[in-house]
Amino acid sequence: MNIARKIMVLACLITAWFLPVVGFGQNKEKVTPYVNPLIGTGAVNNSLSGSTYPGATAPFGFIQLSPDTKENPEWGEPSGYDHNMNKIYGFSHTHLSGTGVADFFDIMLMPATRNLEELTLTSDYSSVFSHDNESAKAGYYQVRLDESDINVELTATTRTGMHRYTYPKGKANTLVFDINHSRDKNSWNTRISNAQVRIIDEYTIEGYRVISGWAKLRKVYFYAKLSLPVKKAILMSDDHIYENGEVANGSNVKALLSFESSDAPLVVKVALSSVSKANAAGNMKENTSWDFDAVAAKTDSEWEKELSKIMIEGTPVQKEIFYTGLYHAFIQPNTFSDSNGEYQAIDYTTRKLESGETQYSTFSLWDSYRATHPLYTILQPERSTDFVNSLLRQYDDYGYLPVWQLWGQENYCMIGNHSIPVVVDAIFKNIKNIDVEKAYEAVKNSSTRSHPNAPFDIWEKYGYMPENLQTQSVSLTLEMAYNDWCVAQLAKYLDRTADYDHFTKRSQFYRNIFNKETGFFWAKDDKGNWLEPFNPLKYGANGGYPITEGNTWQYLWYVPQDVPDFISLMGGDKAFENKLDEFFTLEVTSGEKNNNASGFIGQYAHGNEPSHHVTYLYNYTGAPHKTQYYVSKVMNELYNNTFSGYSGNEDCGQMSAWYVFSSMGFYPVNPANGIYVIGTPLLEQAVISLPGGKTFTMKAPKKSDKDIYIQSVMLNSKKYDNTYIRHQDIISGGVLEFKMGSKPSKWGSNPENRPPNS
Amino acid sequence: MNIARKIMVLACLITAWFLPVVGFGQNKEKVTPYVNPLIGTGAVNNSLSGSTYPGATAPFGFIQLSPDTKENPEWGEPSGYDHNMNKIYGFSHTHLSGTGVADFFDIMLMPATRNLEELTLTSDYSSVFSHDNESAKAGYYQVRLDESDINVELTATTRTGMHRYTYPKGKANTLVFDINHSRDKNSWNTRISNAQVRIIDEYTIEGYRVISGWAKLRKVYFYAKLSLPVKKAILMSDDHIYENGEVANGSNVKALLSFESSDAPLVVKVALSSVSKANAAGNMKENTSWDFDAVAAKTDSEWEKELSKIMIEGTPVQKEIFYTGLYHAFIQPNTFSDSNGEYQAIDYTTRKLESGETQYSTFSLWDSYRATHPLYTILQPERSTDFVNSLLRQYDDYGYLPVWQLWGQENYCMIGNHSIPVVVDAIFKNIKNIDVEKAYEAVKNSSTRSHPNAPFDIWEKYGYMPENLQTQSVSLTLEMAYNDWCVAQLAKYLDRTADYDHFTKRSQFYRNIFNKETGFFWAKDDKGNWLEPFNPLKYGANGGYPITEGNTWQYLWYVPQDVPDFISLMGGDKAFENKLDEFFTLEVTSGEKNNNASGFIGQYAHGNEPSHHVTYLYNYTGAPHKTQYYVSKVMNELYNNTFSGYSGNEDCGQMSAWYVFSSMGFYPVNPANGIYVIGTPLLEQAVISLPGGKTFTMKAPKKSDKDIYIQSVMLNSKKYDNTYIRHQDIISGGVLEFKMGSKPSKWGSNPENRPPNS
Repeated sequence: MNIARKIMVLACLITAWFLPVVGFGQNKEKVTPYVNPLIGTGAVNNSLSGSTYPGATAPFGFIQLSPDTKENPEWGEPSGYDHNMNKIYGFSHTHLSGTGVADFFDIMLMPATRNLEELTLTSDYSSVFSHDNESAKAGYYQVRLDESDINVELTATTRTGMHRYTYPKGKANTLVFDINHSRDKNSWNTRISNAQVRIIDEYTIEGYRVISGWAKLRKVYFYAKLSLPVKKAILMSDDHIYENGEVANGSNVKALLSFESSDAPLVVKVALSSVSKANAAGNMKENTSWDFDAVAAKTDSEWEKELSKIMIEGTPVQKEIFYTGLYHAFIQPNTFSDSNGEYQAIDYTTRKLESGETQYSTFSLWDSYRATHPLYTILQPERSTDFVNSLLRQYDDYGYLPVWQLWGQENYCMIGNHSIPVVVDAIFKNIKNIDVEKAYEAVKNSSTRSHPNAPFDIWEKYGYMPENLQTQSVSLTLEMAYNDWCVAQLAKYLDRTADYDHFTKRSQFYRNIFNKETGFFWAKDDKGNWLEPFNPLKYGANGGYPITEGNTWQYLWYVPQDVPDFISLMGGDKAFENKLDEFFTLEVTSGEKNNNASGFIGQYAHGNEPSHHVTYLYNYTGAPHKTQYYVSKVMNELYNNTFSGYSGNEDCGQMSAWYVFSSMGFYPVNPANGIYVIGTPLLEQAVISLPGGKTFTMKAPKKSDKDIYIQSVMLNSKKYDNTYIRHQDIISGGVLEFKMGSKPSKWGSNPENRPPNS
Repeated sequence: MNIARKIMVLACLITAWFLPVVGFGQNKEKVTPYVNPLIGTGAVNNSLSGSTYPGATAPFGFIQLSPDTKENPEWGEPSGYDHNMNKIYGFSHTHLSGTGVADFFDIMLMPATRNLEELTLTSDYSSVFSHDNESAKAGYYQVRLDESDINVELTATTRTGMHRYTYPKGKANTLVFDINHSRDKNSWNTRISNAQVRIIDEYTIEGYRVISGWAKLRKVYFYAKLSLPVKKAILMSDDHIYENGEVANGSNVKALLSFESSDAPLVVKVALSSVSKANAAGNMKENTSWDFDAVAAKTDSEWEKELSKIMIEGTPVQKEIFYTGLYHAFIQPNTFSDSNGEYQAIDYTTRKLESGETQYSTFSLWDSYRATHPLYTILQPERSTDFVNSLLRQYDDYGYLPVWQLWGQENYCMIGNHSIPVVVDAIFKNIKNIDVEKAYEAVKNSSTRSHPNAPFDIWEKYGYMPENLQTQSVSLTLEMAYNDWCVAQLAKYLDRTADYDHFTKRSQFYRNIFNKETGFFWAKDDKGNWLEPFNPLKYGANGGYPITEGNTWQYLWYVPQDVPDFISLMGGDKAFENKLDEFFTLEVTSGEKNNNASGFIGQYAHGNEPSHHVTYLYNYTGAPHKTQYYVSKVMNELYNNTFSGYSGNEDCGQMSAWYVFSSMGFYPVNPANGIYVIGTPLLEQAVISLPGGKTFTMKAPKKSDKDIYIQSVMLNSKKYDNTYIRHQDIISGGVLEFKMGSKPSKWGSNPENRPPNS
């Protein structure tokens, strides 16, 4: 019995949330019970952690209220939590899910039974805990702290976190508000410029901090309400201790609170804002209840609404992985605007949205453009409007679209500008309320106004990135050529012929770094000389090498805009297929694997994004059964329902979106052409609820789990031989029916059934 | 002929500003020609610089547009300019006048004749210059750059700077916008989190930077207009060079601009805001003219209006020192709110004022509460309303009043909380539109809510600051006791009897650290033991020693709230007078003088503020002639009209306000009791224009400069023997007439003529 199952059984005994709910005259299984937020929270052996967090959050919420197992998290625990650690330092209100870099961790609370005087002597309020005493569900987290015997329960609404602390009898009831808790202050220029904590009255605390870090500068205001009156408050500011303090300003500020023992647990609600304490107080209006269970139940029902947009048939483990994946995909982008529509713009001014608009942030675009945003276009069309307009608002202030947007700011993490495919894809998929002319201006200017890692004068002059002028040149050349293809498509749509021609030409620049002798993309200098030595197995990280977070093998496959042309460059179908075979079977046991490449099948590394589309490329060579083999292998071997359930960082939904798509039988190889390439359905059935009451149903009945091969397909009861479906096929509603078998078939092997470019 | 005179002569030849102006039927001499902004801009030998800047500013302006003679100014040149240096790095828009710490220097422009490509290769755009080619007036600065032969002229309105660059013929016309230029980035956590420069069109540039430093975090937005079109713009961002750039974001950003050669000089206008680029653009509306001379003339007339509030008779040198002093006193507090009333509050939110209100910042209160703010209550009663309300607005957000407010933020520089006397003094002097109840809440809470260097629990518990619990304990005990006296007076005024008693008791805590054996105030530990060893000549700086920026001798004299009690503590009149005599004559040639104590007469150090009232204390012992002797000595020997004209940092007006008061014959020993102690008038006449058309005239005709001793006094034609006058005597209008002589007289020596406590 794995941990997740144990939690589910426990949960069944406590609450009624696991009972089937009845809807529209039919039994509909409740799906949130399948969400296991502990999946991906740690690693085993030398693998990579998914770097997810187990705490409480609402769909696309501002707040992620979760335990931190390290005093100052860094690379090892970017989400603040590592399942392999045994101490909790406190419960902070903001976390990133699945990133490689740590940040946020704002406003940490920690209940204690030590008295206030003891608490003034330390900045370590941690307690040992056991996973046996821990449980996590969608929007709910619980742990019993071993040292204090306090039972902690957490839930969240969109902009508020809610804590319920049940103290043991006969002990001091104290609580720390730690405004200093943060990522490791020894890197990323992490520093708190100023912070405040202020006791407004015995039930109310407010404050803020201004902190630099991975996000350049974050203003975080909070407003907190307590269910029991504060008996005494000691405030701490840097080296000062203020007995019976009312306000403390400084860099490192804290409030240490004590309460009379009470039969009722202590409930604390905390609202955040990026704009002001007043706005944080305004955000608190979305959580006026003191009934913790009712708030948790409401958040559960919000998750149920979002996650039940796909109802699946499969094994319990498959459902657990699937719904937890969908949950991870729906954690971010995070709501960033306050309930009054204000938010901190990228230029540190306060902007106000029109009524009905929401600003979102946490855009891990190098990851999420691949499958996560395409998934949103199907399941979150209304939020997709806000996502795209949130990206465009950065363009207004910054002059180009986000590369990686964190707390409303640009951190230039990774390469390319993959806002472009997100914006273009949304327009082509008819996502409403996008100003297409403005969007075109944004994608074009983002492709002509040079910015870090994007020197467009060099790009235009050389027709590739010369490594001696711009590092990560191979990865950049490939990804920029793809972005340029996206710009070209929108130019064509708007009859900008000259721009279309120009960007189409740029979209073919990948050809200029293809070395026909080696059969690999590789780096040249500005004189056109190939970089020496060439070793396709050697890894690069984030600069100083032509390849980004991978090796040349993994970056060989990135021409999603024109796979047929790429195949011909590689020497035709057979050569291409042989190279793919080699890719999936070339085992190298040397240490030449970097932290970001993991989850290996040969040189294929599912643990990082450059590999994510590669299993699907066999469809372009007439060998879809090999796609089926490897997609099935990835789904079955590189995902599981334990704390090490992902083969690499979950990356803000992308690892999960890959699974959600692939398990239903298709995947967007080119995330902006509206085409999903068919792989192999893991699930026996998936019913996607669409706007207007329509449904799209995938059926793939199986006799055994060996039935991984497609024998034939029916789309809306008609024989269907194409190895892809179009977005319109899904969004119009219909039934895609797979006949599966344990042996490869000839289905889809004809040239005319290969996925087209558009 | 000194430099200032030379400039004046030169100016006379060029402009008509020096001609007398005619007002109300009588000739009234124009006073701005006496302003010599070069006074105090450098030091000679081992003395301290006044640390003033020579550039252009409007009265109490947001903008201080001035040359920087160092690439990254630090302790040596806090104003950016050191008269002893021979290079100018550029002209930046914000400067501090007379502080000990460097900060600001925002948005540096530097014209050049090097072409753009050359400029991309360096961050040093400096040019050698000569003081022979430099001139400075109120609101105007000019220099010819030796290397490029460009003539630079600067002027300013309240919220805009205006540059006029006359390029030599036949050379490239280029201009650098350097957004990176700042104080030394190796200290005070100085770092630019993010910055932007953006070319809006060929005549318009905007951008911002967010920078930490002495001010914790400053948002500085700019909007610039050019009189000639940009031909080419190269933008630089960190290590990147963007040819023909439109926008650059990063930490270190610059724009390099080129222009076609033109017969007309290039005029550049730059508006700033702490709120947004849009507000900076809004602030530009206060300077719509392209006529540089007209703008400079208008700013001159604004200075004339402010400075001519006192019309004096004296020697030309006395007038130059006096009006330059008044000018330095009126440079700050700086306008901080935008023309639309918005400003960045201390909690980094944007606040909007009511119509007619102005937010000010740059409150160097440990200096300016002594005489500068009292001077404002006479000459700037309307602005005093805004000054006090600006302080109270920090209280709203921070919970206590400012210690030292910089760019709207608290830097806790120095000790005590001398907003308290400023607020209390303003109320007692009937400054309008102050919410007295709120003001009382603010001064009381600022005296009970512990904050850095102000642990009130310790203060209340021990009745003094024990050095082992709170360093700078002697200075703090003395200054806090004074602040407590101020709170007590306001409590009394509001009939808060219990508070009055409580704060009166606290105001006597100075007694608890007076060591009768040594006759000095000295430090105890929390057990009541005197700190060993005791050396009254030893200097402390800003922590780690009981005395702040001085020695025990200099801090001996700080009981302005009750000098009679202090005298009795010291053993009576004679003992007190003997101790004063020793103070002014004890020459110590050891190296035990720190940077902040300078301008010595014995142990008296006029170069720093703790000594400023001490010459006036002889009036309390029946020996006013000794006050007259030493006040005269300070005025004559420790002020001059050269670049080393101050004996220490000018300190945001305080060194000048001392001179302005003293030269008219009186000085506020206790800055909050409305009493000015009479010294000795240096000037032969001073006429202060008061609201309502009234005037207060001081007359002191002299036969020679040896006439430093008061023989008799008439107030409004009546014999006047008190050695002080009251604020009401001044503000009601009238005539104070001194009969002077070269020998000491008995005037004012009777006990009943001594200054009272209130």
